Amino acid sequence: MPVITVNWWQGNDRESRRDLVAGITDVVTRVSGCPDETVTVIVRDVAPDHWGKGGQLADEIRPPRSLR
Amino acid sequence: MPVITVNWWQGNDRESRRDLVAGITDVVTRVSGCPDETVTVIVRDVAPDHWGKGGQLADEIRPPRSLR
Amino acid sequence: MPVITVNWWQGNDRESRRDLVAGITDVVTRVSGCPDETVTVIVRDVAPDHWGKGGQLADEIRPPRSLR
Amino acid sequence: MPVITVNWWQGNDRESRRDLVAGITDVVTRVSGCPDETVTVIVRDVAPDHWGKGGQLADEIRPPRSLR
Amino acid sequence: MPVITVNWWQGNDRESRRDLVAGITDVVTRVSGCPDETVTVIVRDVAPDHWGKGGQLADEIRPPRSLR
Amino acid sequence: MPVITVNWWQGNDRESRRDLVAGITDVVTRVSGCPDETVTVIVRDVAPDHWGKGGQLADEIRPPRSLR
Repeated sequence: MPVITVNWWQGNDRESRRDLVAGITDVVTRVSGCPDETVTVIVRDVAPDHWGKGGQLADEIRPPRSLR
Repeated sequence: MPVITVNWWQGNDRESRRDLVAGITDVVTRVSGCPDETVTVIVRDVAPDHWGKGGQLADEIRPPRSLR
Repeated sequence: MPVITVNWWQGNDRESRRDLVAGITDVVTRVSGCPDETVTVIVRDVAPDHWGKGGQLADEIRPPRSLR
Repeated sequence: MPVITVNWWQGNDRESRRDLVAGITDVVTRVSGCPDETVTVIVRDVAPDHWGKGGQLADEIRPPRSLR
Repeated sequence: MPVITVNWWQGNDRESRRDLVAGITDVVTRVSGCPDETVTVIVRDVAPDHWGKGGQLADEIRPPRSLR
Repeated sequence: MPVITVNWWQGNDRESRRDLVAGITDVVTRVSGCPDETVTVIVRDVAPDHWGKGGQLADEIRPPRSLR
């Protein structure tokens, strides 16, 4: 019955979502022993300008000084 | 103060959301005894190609052999 | 396939959770037309001192002046 | 490592999200003592017709009788 | 930056959580290409009597007639 | 109407939660212009052994070689 939610940055295509769902379902069924048809994975694409990291919008994060 | 989140497949129209919100609020207020204006329902439409079930994207799930 | 999460204050007993799950499942299946065995409801009991409302912890909310 | 999710009505612009992320990160780092680069804020814009309050869709909420 | 939340039934031990976190992180980094230290996995153990399936509390689900 | 969920490591006391709720509510009301009594904050304490970072359980994360 596991329900897994993935929040990641938008930009991953259908092929990636297919791999993601298959891979996560394999891991969860292997670890928990539940049948794979009971596993739900909800994939949420989030725009980087709706994602905050270190107090900044992710699409405005300046690379550390050493990499500028 | 209850906060309910509904993740369902996209495709349900405004009328359905109205029924959903009214119905869930009735159930929650009846069961918990809280006033209905304190109940929040957030409805999330999810595309079937962002929903995994049994290791597949929901829009690629092949019907079981007996139904093919 | 709908997945519903209910965040409400702790203190509701098993009987209430049973009613909640049955009631919400009925509403969702009626509105969306999906079979009831596909509906998942996750119930999260939250302690009032882990719930903020109007900037206060819910168990410290002073009733409005007129009711004091 | 804190992960904060903000569900609010859509309509707030980039500037508001920038302020929101900076402000919430400041509060969380001040209160928890963790470094700000470990704080993740996910901002979810929700359309009022996908938000239920008091049993109604938020964009259909009639102002109380006294204000009509 | 991905944030993954796993809701599963309580009863899985530390070893299982370790495998779950390692496995999911591998899948997400392989599929998205992000570095593994940016992946957050939050594991939520849910008691079966707080989990509804098909309108019943999960710990009260009677096996289908054929299996009784 | 904003609903904010905070997932952070367990170990923060009531005083911290009070500051957290007050601070986040101030930020959200300032940025969005909504009245503070409409802001809900749900605080979730998560044990480090239920939190994965970089593929490890957070309470098993070895400090980088330079700090050992």
